[in-house]
Amino acid sequence: MKHDTIVAVATPAGVGGIAVVRLSGPDALPLAQAHLSAPSLPERQAVYCRFDDLDDGIAIYYPSGYTGEPTVEFSCHGSLYVQQALVQALTDSGARLAEPGEFTMRAFLNGRLNLSQAEAVADLIDAVTPIQHRLAVSQLRGGYADELRALRQQLLDLTSLLELELDFSQEDVEFADRSQLTQLVDTIGRRVDTLRNSFSWGNALKRGVPLAIIGRPNAGKSSLLNALLHDDRAIVSPVPGTTRDTIEEAFVIDGIPFRIIDTAGLRQSDDPVETMGIQRTLDAVKRADYILYVHDATQSAHAITDDLEQLKRLTPLDKKHLLVVFNKVDLLPDAPPSALRSYPVSAKNGTGLDQLAQALAQAVKADRAAAPEVLLTNARHLDALAHVGQALAQVSLGLSDGIPSDLVAVDLRDALHHLGTITGEVTDDEVLGNIFSRFCVGK
Amino acid sequence: MKHDTIVAVATPAGVGGIAVVRLSGPDALPLAQAHLSAPSLPERQAVYCRFDDLDDGIAIYYPSGYTGEPTVEFSCHGSLYVQQALVQALTDSGARLAEPGEFTMRAFLNGRLNLSQAEAVADLIDAVTPIQHRLAVSQLRGGYADELRALRQQLLDLTSLLELELDFSQEDVEFADRSQLTQLVDTIGRRVDTLRNSFSWGNALKRGVPLAIIGRPNAGKSSLLNALLHDDRAIVSPVPGTTRDTIEEAFVIDGIPFRIIDTAGLRQSDDPVETMGIQRTLDAVKRADYILYVHDATQSAHAITDDLEQLKRLTPLDKKHLLVVFNKVDLLPDAPPSALRSYPVSAKNGTGLDQLAQALAQAVKADRAAAPEVLLTNARHLDALAHVGQALAQVSLGLSDGIPSDLVAVDLRDALHHLGTITGEVTDDEVLGNIFSRFCVGK
Repeated sequence: MKHDTIVAVATPAGVGGIAVVRLSGPDALPLAQAHLSAPSLPERQAVYCRFDDLDDGIAIYYPSGYTGEPTVEFSCHGSLYVQQALVQALTDSGARLAEPGEFTMRAFLNGRLNLSQAEAVADLIDAVTPIQHRLAVSQLRGGYADELRALRQQLLDLTSLLELELDFSQEDVEFADRSQLTQLVDTIGRRVDTLRNSFSWGNALKRGVPLAIIGRPNAGKSSLLNALLHDDRAIVSPVPGTTRDTIEEAFVIDGIPFRIIDTAGLRQSDDPVETMGIQRTLDAVKRADYILYVHDATQSAHAITDDLEQLKRLTPLDKKHLLVVFNKVDLLPDAPPSALRSYPVSAKNGTGLDQLAQALAQAVKADRAAAPEVLLTNARHLDALAHVGQALAQVSLGLSDGIPSDLVAVDLRDALHHLGTITGEVTDDEVLGNIFSRFCVGK
Repeated sequence: MKHDTIVAVATPAGVGGIAVVRLSGPDALPLAQAHLSAPSLPERQAVYCRFDDLDDGIAIYYPSGYTGEPTVEFSCHGSLYVQQALVQALTDSGARLAEPGEFTMRAFLNGRLNLSQAEAVADLIDAVTPIQHRLAVSQLRGGYADELRALRQQLLDLTSLLELELDFSQEDVEFADRSQLTQLVDTIGRRVDTLRNSFSWGNALKRGVPLAIIGRPNAGKSSLLNALLHDDRAIVSPVPGTTRDTIEEAFVIDGIPFRIIDTAGLRQSDDPVETMGIQRTLDAVKRADYILYVHDATQSAHAITDDLEQLKRLTPLDKKHLLVVFNKVDLLPDAPPSALRSYPVSAKNGTGLDQLAQALAQAVKADRAAAPEVLLTNARHLDALAHVGQALAQVSLGLSDGIPSDLVAVDLRDALHHLGTITGEVTDDEVLGNIFSRFCVGK
């Protein structure tokens, strides 16, 4: 760990009323005092003072701030010049410009946050909808990580006892209670399975519920998408895609974030190029939990049955939410026949869009209510839990088959290792680098 | 003045490590306490607490904050959701969303800042270069406004004495010392003239020194401009144009902001359309203090003399800085003849650009050193001072011609009124509205 003093603007980049420059590290107080007109900075007191001849603002000294280190925060005028000049003045005096996430990394290294909580800080900052916010807050306040840490500690104790036996292998003693160990391994294994199963939900709510819009050419899929995106009822918001550099088309209904997987055209044909269109639709349907099948209401409804029959032959649909949309109802003399999960709309004049949007939101809310309260949202944790699950399965097998303790202990250590990576009891520099490079500078 | 409690995010718009929500007005403390977990908020103390179930952060209570009113500032996580949710929670409890500049307007109305200082806050926030910053800080710390206010007070006293005489007009008394009045009017008049004359400099340094790039077609004016804009030595920065909605092409050399007036082509012709080209060049030259005349170094240098002679016939150039640039020197076998204020460059390969940029910056710095230290930068003040100057001229005339005191008093009141608008001793709602609508929300 580096023991230098770091500095960065902690507020969003740009011009505003005020900005906050954060200085953290062993020399934070003397470094700040060299620039501030205040004769002293009493702990946690807002002191109005001048920074060099650059600006007047409020300085606050924390003996142990967010990072767990001495920290000084200076609220200055939010001009580009002032922000840059203050940071420059402090780096000229010996502070180092903080790397992305370095303040939070120090909070982790100083034991103020565990690794799962540190990751939750990044999720919290990225949150746009109330659901994303709640997921991040739950993780920040402990979430499943606290529980996993407690279970890991129990497993660690039993593993140590088991390993102790190896030192006395001549004597055939048993320090570790095998039935207790089996029970604990089962408990952790079940918890791990539940969490792993909750990931598809957690990820959907965090990144946006995947929604596929499919249908034949000219059914009005793009028009419907545009109508949903630009409708007042569905607030559009940027949501990071599955790779963090992309912004997928996304919108929010009643606080539920949706993410458009595709608006693929569907056409039955023997032409190989057309078949590719079906392949694209199939891919979208497989990745989406919710599907809008858009039908041109002025055309024969037979197309719906034909298309959906064909889809079902190619991929199971029974776990998907399928909503059939009769588009272009503005062109019909009468309302189309209404049926369960079928929605008459006009993307052109807006008829029925509100009902469709509400139906989507309600479907998600009903599913959410049936899902576990605590959800796994972090792909790194999912990966770690997969390793934990494999190792624990080996342990169970070993215990029931009477495999020698030293081999069981190896699998236990493997499970302990991967459990430990979640809360950061086990870390390596590369993992930390990956996690904190996601952050903005100043956090 | 409104006596309600206002709220807004005070930090720049967007996502960042932290954001600050500012709440100001008579109910700021109880309103904040209704949402915060802290049992109490001691004055000016940083208190770590929870805001509803939304976020954990630092709350600080100022009995008299930036606005001069009770103020609570809450540092929260800088997510879009948290920022919006906190403001929403506070408006739901009865706070009102602050209008742009409303915090600073309250600081003015509560006597924490005069109007000129309030305007300087907006300039300070907009500052990108050190010069813009210094001009704003000088105005924020009093600048000429303090001096004008003191002079106005003296003038007000003498005017009151003069008006008192009118009540005793039958008795032919003189309370106001005429020679003292004449002297004061002269003093203020001279100060006003000096300030008005400093505006072209003040405005140039605040908005960018106006620079015209002229020359014949294909001399490489645009290439030179691009080379200057994209050169590492000349840091490009957005500078607000003369109308605040436009961004003119601008760059910074050694902290001096330059603003490109035009890159007009110059061609001698009898064709009326071509003459319009000359007209455009003339307009640019008239508006610019610094002129780069770009010559294609592979062509005859006679063009330079011809063009500049013609320009001089059409507009005086003696107060302008004219730099002659020999472009395309990369195409020449030898260096072109060097002369005072002529610069051989290649926009293509970058030769000589550094020298040209430095020459521009040095020319401005020399001019700046010769200009008065205190500069007028505010167009509203310039307008007010023009009215003050006119009124004082009438007063001088009246005093020397022995015009009746009641008529002189009218002109004095006119001068007092316009002097008073600068620091805000005289205000009207429309003027205040114009000034504070320039601000961002949250300041």
